[in-house]
Amino acid sequence: MPSQERRYVITFGCPDRTGIVAAISSFLADAGGWIVEAAYHTDPDTNWFFTRQVVRADSVSYDLPALRTAFADVAARFAGPDGSQPAWRIADTGQRRRVVLAVSKEPHCLYDILGRVAAGELDVDVRAVIGNHAELGPITEAHGIPFHHVPFPAGSPQAKASAFERMRELVDEHDPHAVVLARFMQVLPPELCAHWAGRALNIHHSFLPSFMGARPYHQAHLRGVKLIGATCHYVTADLDAGPIVEQDVIRVAHGDTVPDMVRKGRDIEKIVLARGLRWHLENRVLVHGNRTVIF
Amino acid sequence: MPSQERRYVITFGCPDRTGIVAAISSFLADAGGWIVEAAYHTDPDTNWFFTRQVVRADSVSYDLPALRTAFADVAARFAGPDGSQPAWRIADTGQRRRVVLAVSKEPHCLYDILGRVAAGELDVDVRAVIGNHAELGPITEAHGIPFHHVPFPAGSPQAKASAFERMRELVDEHDPHAVVLARFMQVLPPELCAHWAGRALNIHHSFLPSFMGARPYHQAHLRGVKLIGATCHYVTADLDAGPIVEQDVIRVAHGDTVPDMVRKGRDIEKIVLARGLRWHLENRVLVHGNRTVIF
Amino acid sequence: MPSQERRYVITFGCPDRTGIVAAISSFLADAGGWIVEAAYHTDPDTNWFFTRQVVRADSVSYDLPALRTAFADVAARFAGPDGSQPAWRIADTGQRRRVVLAVSKEPHCLYDILGRVAAGELDVDVRAVIGNHAELGPITEAHGIPFHHVPFPAGSPQAKASAFERMRELVDEHDPHAVVLARFMQVLPPELCAHWAGRALNIHHSFLPSFMGARPYHQAHLRGVKLIGATCHYVTADLDAGPIVEQDVIRVAHGDTVPDMVRKGRDIEKIVLARGLRWHLENRVLVHGNRTVIF
Amino acid sequence: MPSQERRYVITFGCPDRTGIVAAISSFLADAGGWIVEAAYHTDPDTNWFFTRQVVRADSVSYDLPALRTAFADVAARFAGPDGSQPAWRIADTGQRRRVVLAVSKEPHCLYDILGRVAAGELDVDVRAVIGNHAELGPITEAHGIPFHHVPFPAGSPQAKASAFERMRELVDEHDPHAVVLARFMQVLPPELCAHWAGRALNIHHSFLPSFMGARPYHQAHLRGVKLIGATCHYVTADLDAGPIVEQDVIRVAHGDTVPDMVRKGRDIEKIVLARGLRWHLENRVLVHGNRTVIF
Repeated sequence: MPSQERRYVITFGCPDRTGIVAAISSFLADAGGWIVEAAYHTDPDTNWFFTRQVVRADSVSYDLPALRTAFADVAARFAGPDGSQPAWRIADTGQRRRVVLAVSKEPHCLYDILGRVAAGELDVDVRAVIGNHAELGPITEAHGIPFHHVPFPAGSPQAKASAFERMRELVDEHDPHAVVLARFMQVLPPELCAHWAGRALNIHHSFLPSFMGARPYHQAHLRGVKLIGATCHYVTADLDAGPIVEQDVIRVAHGDTVPDMVRKGRDIEKIVLARGLRWHLENRVLVHGNRTVIF
Repeated sequence: MPSQERRYVITFGCPDRTGIVAAISSFLADAGGWIVEAAYHTDPDTNWFFTRQVVRADSVSYDLPALRTAFADVAARFAGPDGSQPAWRIADTGQRRRVVLAVSKEPHCLYDILGRVAAGELDVDVRAVIGNHAELGPITEAHGIPFHHVPFPAGSPQAKASAFERMRELVDEHDPHAVVLARFMQVLPPELCAHWAGRALNIHHSFLPSFMGARPYHQAHLRGVKLIGATCHYVTADLDAGPIVEQDVIRVAHGDTVPDMVRKGRDIEKIVLARGLRWHLENRVLVHGNRTVIF
Repeated sequence: MPSQERRYVITFGCPDRTGIVAAISSFLADAGGWIVEAAYHTDPDTNWFFTRQVVRADSVSYDLPALRTAFADVAARFAGPDGSQPAWRIADTGQRRRVVLAVSKEPHCLYDILGRVAAGELDVDVRAVIGNHAELGPITEAHGIPFHHVPFPAGSPQAKASAFERMRELVDEHDPHAVVLARFMQVLPPELCAHWAGRALNIHHSFLPSFMGARPYHQAHLRGVKLIGATCHYVTADLDAGPIVEQDVIRVAHGDTVPDMVRKGRDIEKIVLARGLRWHLENRVLVHGNRTVIF
Repeated sequence: MPSQERRYVITFGCPDRTGIVAAISSFLADAGGWIVEAAYHTDPDTNWFFTRQVVRADSVSYDLPALRTAFADVAARFAGPDGSQPAWRIADTGQRRRVVLAVSKEPHCLYDILGRVAAGELDVDVRAVIGNHAELGPITEAHGIPFHHVPFPAGSPQAKASAFERMRELVDEHDPHAVVLARFMQVLPPELCAHWAGRALNIHHSFLPSFMGARPYHQAHLRGVKLIGATCHYVTADLDAGPIVEQDVIRVAHGDTVPDMVRKGRDIEKIVLARGLRWHLENRVLVHGNRTVIF
């Protein structure tokens, strides 16, 4: 997301039928919209239609509120015969994306994201970093980003609940487009999963659904697999079972110990998370049930 | 391409401007067209717009000739200000694709394609196999496909020219959708490149533009590369420089001799060729200059 | 395994201690052995040492029986303090490898193996193909290989047991180095798993341990994974849980239906199986517990 | 290279003959050496033998100077009949590796290396960072590492020569095990290539030998390749032609502009460089002519 001309990103889903593309594209053409990206997909299992369209903001005759109002009329035509409603959103790339990160001790995902911001390739506003350990405070603050140390004591459910309450306040203060669990190592309680639904991204250090839960590299080593992986997914109350955004793998061999796997896995974790975060912030990810469409 | 309901595949390219998507999709909506696949791309360098749309044949109110006639009117609206004309085609999946293969002694690409036809995943009509050696005759004929042995004598330009003339006749008799050089090992003369332009696919056993020309695995071994590759491209008069359709690589190490590279490379060659051939036959490849758009 | 000079392949495993490499290499040096490949590994978890050494047969002063007798003396020195015995084998590449394949209707793995034999890259003797359906008989017989149609009736346990008995006879008659379940789609009974232990290879169409059991591509589609895989493993009584020899993956996207996954997965299945089979026949795979060392 | 028990790493190369492994392993066994890693390779083209052996320092009866003296006697036995001398080295992991980095404006490789050091996975001493621009000073200094801004003025050969002279002093002061051109963007003069031969690593942002020289992503975009790559190689006077240590690729598509390629390529560059650097510092890379053996 390097700085560039302002664009409107329309994402839309509804029960499939004929004429949807025509209706949307005619609406945009009538509004003068210069389409710079367009993608379509119909899921044959659920018969649900998805599209993402990107138009130059300066080409559209409406301002953003008016565009939303006008588009709502188009969308309303595509409710299903069973009453199911279209799901849509119009995002404005002129509004800088706000991100809050949650980390633990492992620095690789944090360094990777900070490096992308420094390189200008990820043009986001990292508002805050929350750490359940203090180690990553200095590197965060060296980038001028506030770091909040919020310990999550293992033995005390009450203290943990308070820590999550504190985390919620620290996050919500920024109303972020993404809450990124960048190797955070704490399981969000169901109410926070619900509260940040569709905005909380996690990186799990295995090729899900293999090796859910704790110590996936140990599990992988025991099973003797020849590839290890990482998975970026939306956080849901069902641990490690949320909609998958991106996955990748790297080869391991008999000579790789668990620490070797941990080391090699980091290179996949950070890149898979970075891809997933970018796609999420560019409104490329449409969730439908437990699956994702990536445009 | 398993047998399935009949579809029309519209591919279209023109200078970019607003309203193209609206015009095409409105035309299709008015014709009752149920779109099952749609993809768009604009090349920012050349400002050229590309689309591919797939509609169910039974949903369209026109028959095929009428659809073409009607669509020609839509297309005509999108000539460029400089007079550049839209390029478009409407293919009918109800018409089975015809393919002619040219081979030498190496069997892996031939086996791979025959295996895909046997598995029903590549629903094409392999009309003939032309071999500059006789070795692959029996396996071809075991599949009920005619095999033509056309030797290309190394020393005699005249005999070679005659062989190419014979090849041309054997191919053209079938008016194939694809002429596949499946490790054919002969360089087509410029006039045949021109004659089969956009229909002749080659598999080159390197990651082009590295190691053009002869003995690419030997070249790769000498240079000490850590990955070897294969490239499927359209054949042009400029050897190994035609538009690239697909590429892939496989890892090699210091222990791999040239024969090891040859062996490992085959697995990439056959799969890259199969992908390229499938995309070509499904009209997913749009060529513009020396580059391809793969929808 | 192209035809080449004759070699002896020594594989050896024992509890780790100092002096093993020295003892083996001194023994070989004293016997005049010209080592052309040597690999070592110690597993830190089990403290088990593994080696594979390849020597030119013509360089060794012993004949094969004498080499085995002499080597047994060296090996005997490396029993563990707890009485655990070294595991070793000396294979002779001068003896052509015998293989029996078991197939069902899906042709891709069979075509792939036959193509490798035809290309000379897999220099093995495919003694027989057993099919629980008749479809792959003609292509088998076109290669001069006997095909045995052994139906496995779904409803009758007794008829199924008889079919496995028949299969056992057909396989054992050739005393093969490998029994390859090339998409055989029948679960071997425990007694056959035990009988062919260390010789029966299966290709499972998922990235194990994800999606064990039936219809893995359907499972993968439901979960919305972004990569699908294939696993070559030794067959054990514990379904899809045997020691893994090789795995690989291929990318899928939201547009891929289950049939698309089946089609894309085939390209991984056949290549993963071919690699696993080659390594097994070259005595590159050392099994220790449920894990493999691949030299 | 996490901190661990001290080890000696022996790398050795000589003309191939029988008895080398026996001589080395017997020498090590006699010295009490507990081998924890051993690898062998013979290059059939040059008939050169290579080995790398890692022994626990505490298991060896010699101290390091005595080990070197004693091993020199073993090595001396393996000169070739043509007088070619063995090449060998014994490295001590107890001596922390010293590294100097040279950078320009692009931060991704620097962040990546600093992140690996912070994570403890790369246990090296980054002594200094030299930048031909000032931008990466603050992040360097936030890690307590000295940053030296050495401008290389484009127009003045004399000023450039002085800058290289200054660079040489800044590097040589630390006698580093590796000089890493981490997207340095300046071509080292031949005398510096010679001076740091075997220690200077570069990351080139293409899959060499494709797209040597300037602006490789622009070249790749023009050619329409479907994969882009990165190459870590030793720096030699022949630009981008030094021995290759590691390469990898990432897929691109028609929708990727040059800036997209630049962005995607960074993820490959930083990981390929990190792998190459690790292998170099662990003495896993043996150079022979223009090729490398990676143990």
